[in-house]
Amino acid sequence: MKVIGNPATINVLQQPTSYAWVEQAITNLDTILLDHAHCELKAASSAIHLMFRYPSKTKMVQELTKIAKEELEHFDQVNNWLEKRNIPMAPLNAPPYGAALKAQIRHQEPLRFLDSLLVSGLIEARSHERLGLLSTYCLEVDLAAFYSSLMSSEARHYGVYWRLADTYFARDIFMSRLQELALLESELLTNLYPQPRVHS
Amino acid sequence: MKVIGNPATINVLQQPTSYAWVEQAITNLDTILLDHAHCELKAASSAIHLMFRYPSKTKMVQELTKIAKEELEHFDQVNNWLEKRNIPMAPLNAPPYGAALKAQIRHQEPLRFLDSLLVSGLIEARSHERLGLLSTYCLEVDLAAFYSSLMSSEARHYGVYWRLADTYFARDIFMSRLQELALLESELLTNLYPQPRVHS
Repeated sequence: MKVIGNPATINVLQQPTSYAWVEQAITNLDTILLDHAHCELKAASSAIHLMFRYPSKTKMVQELTKIAKEELEHFDQVNNWLEKRNIPMAPLNAPPYGAALKAQIRHQEPLRFLDSLLVSGLIEARSHERLGLLSTYCLEVDLAAFYSSLMSSEARHYGVYWRLADTYFARDIFMSRLQELALLESELLTNLYPQPRVHS
Repeated sequence: MKVIGNPATINVLQQPTSYAWVEQAITNLDTILLDHAHCELKAASSAIHLMFRYPSKTKMVQELTKIAKEELEHFDQVNNWLEKRNIPMAPLNAPPYGAALKAQIRHQEPLRFLDSLLVSGLIEARSHERLGLLSTYCLEVDLAAFYSSLMSSEARHYGVYWRLADTYFARDIFMSRLQELALLESELLTNLYPQPRVHS
């Protein structure tokens, strides 16, 4: 794990996304868009969930309010893309990635709080990497530009989660747990999930 | 129940709020502000919950995305008031109102969908009435102006829930169920809850 200066710029992903995922995603862009809509809604919901659980953490509440609003904004933008492409918004089964990461959240406080921040940050970091790959490899210029436009927000979001972990926990504790979770996060993506998803 | 033209302007509340509530609220403005913050977060969360459950209802998803964003905006504004008054954001037990209304939501579809829209609309309608009372009776000019500024959004929100019910259900079915739920909603508020809350 490479640390450049401050926690917001941690290069946390242990393994880069495989080209197999890029191929799967690029040949199934409609499904990826649909799954992406669900991911944005889940991200907003997770932020709100943390605010319900830890209402007294003022700094966290302020930061996550902004994140939740932005995720809803992106959800709306992805839905506009679905409409433009005549893809009806519909339920879609999730890959095991999110649930497997959330299963790592320890039950006892304050470990639960730390792990919740780190898991959310890791999901944002991976989303950022994959939206970047979509913006690079997508042959449709407008859609590639859209993915590119989302990237800076996703980067800001994982920066927020690291800074919050760094605010509420000692840096060595936060860093060693992040390392453990980041290893697992990469392992979870070793075998490509057969259905095209943002986190397959 | 008075219906003026279209469902957005239904005057749905069966009984107006008692003066006892106004008195309780005005003498406990700090607690009301704190509870108000929780209410805004709950409203955003309920809207997101409906989008997760009914992702294929495109019109609903579009409208509720806007509502959820606005509720988060209000949550942020209420939090600024808490900060200004040095009230730490903290957990606060909820009055029975919300849970009692949600318990009326029938389990079978499409009744569950109808009831969910109507219960959310009723809560918004009551919030609108009570924020109006706060804006009228609050002696602090700035805070009264803030309550007044929120009122138009709350009115828009319950209008959205009625229009959605009217979009997805036959008007007579929607109106007769609304009448039942509105009667119960007023009954729930007959005896003032001893702790100051937006919905005590």
